[in-house]
Amino acid sequence: MNVATVIGIFFGISILATATYFSTDNVRVFLNLPGVAIVLGGTLASTFICFPLKEVMRVSSTFLMALKREELPIGNYIDAIVSIAREASSKGKVHLEKSLPGIENEFLKHALQMLVDGYSADEIKEILDTRIEQTYEQEISSASIYRTMANLSPAYGIIGTLIGLIGMMQSMGSDISNIGPQMAVALTTTLYGILFANMLFLPIAIKVEKRIDERVLLMHVIRDGVLFIKDKTPAAIVLDKLRAYLPPRRWASIENKK
Amino acid sequence: MNVATVIGIFFGISILATATYFSTDNVRVFLNLPGVAIVLGGTLASTFICFPLKEVMRVSSTFLMALKREELPIGNYIDAIVSIAREASSKGKVHLEKSLPGIENEFLKHALQMLVDGYSADEIKEILDTRIEQTYEQEISSASIYRTMANLSPAYGIIGTLIGLIGMMQSMGSDISNIGPQMAVALTTTLYGILFANMLFLPIAIKVEKRIDERVLLMHVIRDGVLFIKDKTPAAIVLDKLRAYLPPRRWASIENKK
Amino acid sequence: MNVATVIGIFFGISILATATYFSTDNVRVFLNLPGVAIVLGGTLASTFICFPLKEVMRVSSTFLMALKREELPIGNYIDAIVSIAREASSKGKVHLEKSLPGIENEFLKHALQMLVDGYSADEIKEILDTRIEQTYEQEISSASIYRTMANLSPAYGIIGTLIGLIGMMQSMGSDISNIGPQMAVALTTTLYGILFANMLFLPIAIKVEKRIDERVLLMHVIRDGVLFIKDKTPAAIVLDKLRAYLPPRRWASIENKK
Amino acid sequence: MNVATVIGIFFGISILATATYFSTDNVRVFLNLPGVAIVLGGTLASTFICFPLKEVMRVSSTFLMALKREELPIGNYIDAIVSIAREASSKGKVHLEKSLPGIENEFLKHALQMLVDGYSADEIKEILDTRIEQTYEQEISSASIYRTMANLSPAYGIIGTLIGLIGMMQSMGSDISNIGPQMAVALTTTLYGILFANMLFLPIAIKVEKRIDERVLLMHVIRDGVLFIKDKTPAAIVLDKLRAYLPPRRWASIENKK
Amino acid sequence: MNVATVIGIFFGISILATATYFSTDNVRVFLNLPGVAIVLGGTLASTFICFPLKEVMRVSSTFLMALKREELPIGNYIDAIVSIAREASSKGKVHLEKSLPGIENEFLKHALQMLVDGYSADEIKEILDTRIEQTYEQEISSASIYRTMANLSPAYGIIGTLIGLIGMMQSMGSDISNIGPQMAVALTTTLYGILFANMLFLPIAIKVEKRIDERVLLMHVIRDGVLFIKDKTPAAIVLDKLRAYLPPRRWASIENKK
Repeated sequence: MNVATVIGIFFGISILATATYFSTDNVRVFLNLPGVAIVLGGTLASTFICFPLKEVMRVSSTFLMALKREELPIGNYIDAIVSIAREASSKGKVHLEKSLPGIENEFLKHALQMLVDGYSADEIKEILDTRIEQTYEQEISSASIYRTMANLSPAYGIIGTLIGLIGMMQSMGSDISNIGPQMAVALTTTLYGILFANMLFLPIAIKVEKRIDERVLLMHVIRDGVLFIKDKTPAAIVLDKLRAYLPPRRWASIENKK
Repeated sequence: MNVATVIGIFFGISILATATYFSTDNVRVFLNLPGVAIVLGGTLASTFICFPLKEVMRVSSTFLMALKREELPIGNYIDAIVSIAREASSKGKVHLEKSLPGIENEFLKHALQMLVDGYSADEIKEILDTRIEQTYEQEISSASIYRTMANLSPAYGIIGTLIGLIGMMQSMGSDISNIGPQMAVALTTTLYGILFANMLFLPIAIKVEKRIDERVLLMHVIRDGVLFIKDKTPAAIVLDKLRAYLPPRRWASIENKK
Repeated sequence: MNVATVIGIFFGISILATATYFSTDNVRVFLNLPGVAIVLGGTLASTFICFPLKEVMRVSSTFLMALKREELPIGNYIDAIVSIAREASSKGKVHLEKSLPGIENEFLKHALQMLVDGYSADEIKEILDTRIEQTYEQEISSASIYRTMANLSPAYGIIGTLIGLIGMMQSMGSDISNIGPQMAVALTTTLYGILFANMLFLPIAIKVEKRIDERVLLMHVIRDGVLFIKDKTPAAIVLDKLRAYLPPRRWASIENKK
Repeated sequence: MNVATVIGIFFGISILATATYFSTDNVRVFLNLPGVAIVLGGTLASTFICFPLKEVMRVSSTFLMALKREELPIGNYIDAIVSIAREASSKGKVHLEKSLPGIENEFLKHALQMLVDGYSADEIKEILDTRIEQTYEQEISSASIYRTMANLSPAYGIIGTLIGLIGMMQSMGSDISNIGPQMAVALTTTLYGILFANMLFLPIAIKVEKRIDERVLLMHVIRDGVLFIKDKTPAAIVLDKLRAYLPPRRWASIENKK
Repeated sequence: MNVATVIGIFFGISILATATYFSTDNVRVFLNLPGVAIVLGGTLASTFICFPLKEVMRVSSTFLMALKREELPIGNYIDAIVSIAREASSKGKVHLEKSLPGIENEFLKHALQMLVDGYSADEIKEILDTRIEQTYEQEISSASIYRTMANLSPAYGIIGTLIGLIGMMQSMGSDISNIGPQMAVALTTTLYGILFANMLFLPIAIKVEKRIDERVLLMHVIRDGVLFIKDKTPAAIVLDKLRAYLPPRRWASIENKK
């Protein structure tokens, strides 16, 4: 689990908890379980109507994936591809075929398999491009579940508050002495709705989208690398071309393994 | 009818109904039929002004289509195209012509018909591309009806509340004892407007848009497949190329029929 | 005038009028002429600052155009182009020249005139593409007037309400007995602003934009058709290619005239 | 100065002034100079933080440019280019060089200069395309200052109101008799913020953006025209091609000078 | 540090401070440290959840970079490239190699290094294009941190106010004498949220984005320049082509050094 997220969640909760604690002498008013049910339940309900069941189920796995690691080791992949390029030119295709089972990344493996199978450069490019584009479309479509939840959550917060207010006002006479506590309870759902959206759904959506961008970038690096190997580009130039995908400050970590 | 939608609707309604039931001792205040008329009627009225009659009429059919199935069986279509490719290379065009009447999908049939009729690859590509693009434009234009309704619904909710508030305030004197119940009634339309938008119109809009994306993806698969058959690409490579449109976790379902 | 719009306007007004009538015993509070002046006047004033005089003047004509007809008869144009293609191949250019004065559509006439004048296919394509693109830009720019008005109208509604509220509060003492009626009047402008935006400006904007999409689609059909005639494409293939611009359910109306 | 803008500003101010005058017996409450300072000052301050000094300084000049004229005389430029094309083919390059100093438009002059200097068509196209693209980027970036101000202005209006409300509430006891006037003053800044945004900043932003579109269109016409002259296209076809940039209703003004 | 930013910050703070000072007789109500903690702390917490730790850390450096200089001296770079082009054609590659260590800009150095190393024009273009595109993506992704903070800040402002209001209302009886001061404190967080967003985060986001546009423009100029040198384009034409990236009013500063 990456550090920034832990810091963020811990820091955010403790600040808001402290502020809440000092703002009232009766903290329990902030614990409105039916309000949580309206906001989270309503948001989930609408999400289930929007998206197919399988995709909503996959949401928790994309979430955990998003938390896991800080950055994809694109530099390592560049190293790996450059050394494959070097070996391919010196030891030939047969050696490449033997090393295939040891490759973990499914996309790189598929690309190298096509290389070994003698597909033309155009065919390899076409198939990998389709895969990259479709991967992007499918992942972004999953990530949009969090964006949708970030939009729905404040709406259900307001819905909860309106339900509370209408109930309160309907029974309100000229006596306004107990309006306060009832209104306090009604307002908690709006608080929940905005809080869930800005501390949970929106940050996760942004994080997942950034992960997708990185994965697609890695796929581009792999596609280009395999096409360079197909074209028998010298390993040094492969390194130069793939390195361009990374900012110069991350070049050092690649070069010292050259 | 797909499962997630049923769960979503049932779950959402029961949560909100329960919360509403416990928030007041007079549930009938939430049943404001004139309010429903303002929100739904106004939304429909504006929708009728925006869109041609035929398109609004077609809305209910796109809605039912959206509910029906979980996922288009793109894998099955890939299987079908691969086996057509195999037969076309072994048995020739005459066989292909005979199998045409058995094909259900209108788009695939049209594409194969052009193949049989001896259209050039460029002509087939041009016609299918125009059809795909136009289908996308027309369907998205239909789907935008739901987006429009999702925008209009909260606006009419506020309009209803304003009408109620203005009527109430106009007759209000210094006696504010019966403001409460009147305000409660006025606020229900805002509740309806936000609820319809977030539980009905927006989820349907998102669902219909995802269905359209899938249909267009299927059309791309069919177009590519038919062009591969035209080019006499070997069936194995057709499979490899079309499979790239699906995520790897769905490849297994295709391959075991190879 | 098309049916859906009439139904929409009539239905919307009657629902809101009925709801308004029953919400108060003094309907006249909803007729706030200075409020109408602020909302419509302010919206128009800002629109005049945004857009050149000629374009604002043309707005009413685009509005009437938008109301007139349900759908452009693209099918008829396809029929016409196919029969021109048939005649052009059998009777030659001279016949085409004679039939020119009978063609109503200015764009088709211009395109055919260039054909008769012996322009090259590239020149015809270049000129028609420029015209299509520029037509789209100019019409969308006109349509954006309605979008702008839909954004301005609620803002002026709030401006009117603020003017009313400020005036009321300034003279308010501890006596709050006549706050109600004054606030009612102040709120009517917000009601007007939201109502005009959602029942008038936004629907018209959407309608005009859809009309423009259709006109541009027709121009594409005409451009392609004339280029096919230039290339001496057989009439049957012209029909097949142009038909792809329409959804299959509208093909029947073309084919039975073949 | 163009007519629509004058009408718009005059019309808008007089409507709002009249409405304001009749809404209160003490108009001076609407003149809240510290409020104007907060809204305009805050908006300007944020704008100065966003944009480099030079660009903010240039804003007033783009503003005046936007007011000046109704429409760029693109028709006249087409006439001029067509007659240059005619002369270039009949009298040759030397004549063209002599007429250069008489050309006012800097972009046309530069383009013709390159023609005279014997640049290749590709070089002319490349240089003019870069200039058009960069001009568009730079002008749009300037115009975005007004968009930014239109977004900032209501925010500072609300900031001003909050400052007023907080000050008022802090000193408020159970005596609420003088809440009214203080709240009236606090609300004026919100009024200012929305008014400045919708009557000043947004209309200017839209107007400047439309001017830029026109200028870029003119640059496209000039680029195409000069490239046609380079290609020795006959003047009649140059006219036909450039005319396509204008709507047919403006063709008459060009043709009668042919 | 550039002048406009200093003016903006100083001007903005002094206007708001003055307005605040005169709006109340107890300025200390505006200093609500727990409120600042909620708004800034919450915004930071959510930002830490959204973005990887390294990127948030780099934010302060991009911020300082944004403040530093008014405009990138693109004109100087054009001068430098033109003189390199002149020397490269007269003195040859060997001279170019010697001058490499004196070049400060890393991107220009890398491009010239590839020129000296004898890379083909296509390879140079490919590598530089990848670097430009990736630089843009990475920088824009950093800049989006400020945009995200500008969106989060008002949300946490409202969250703070809701926490304050709920606490206040819960303990509120029929005695409303001390509502005022409590509400004043609660509202300060909304004020902070809007103020931080519009005076801090949004202006910085816009400024950083403009800096990125400039850097990418400079990279385009360098890429084109180096490719022109590779093509042995005469220095005068290199000047003409690169100058097109700047508005004519900035040409003078380049030409007089020619």
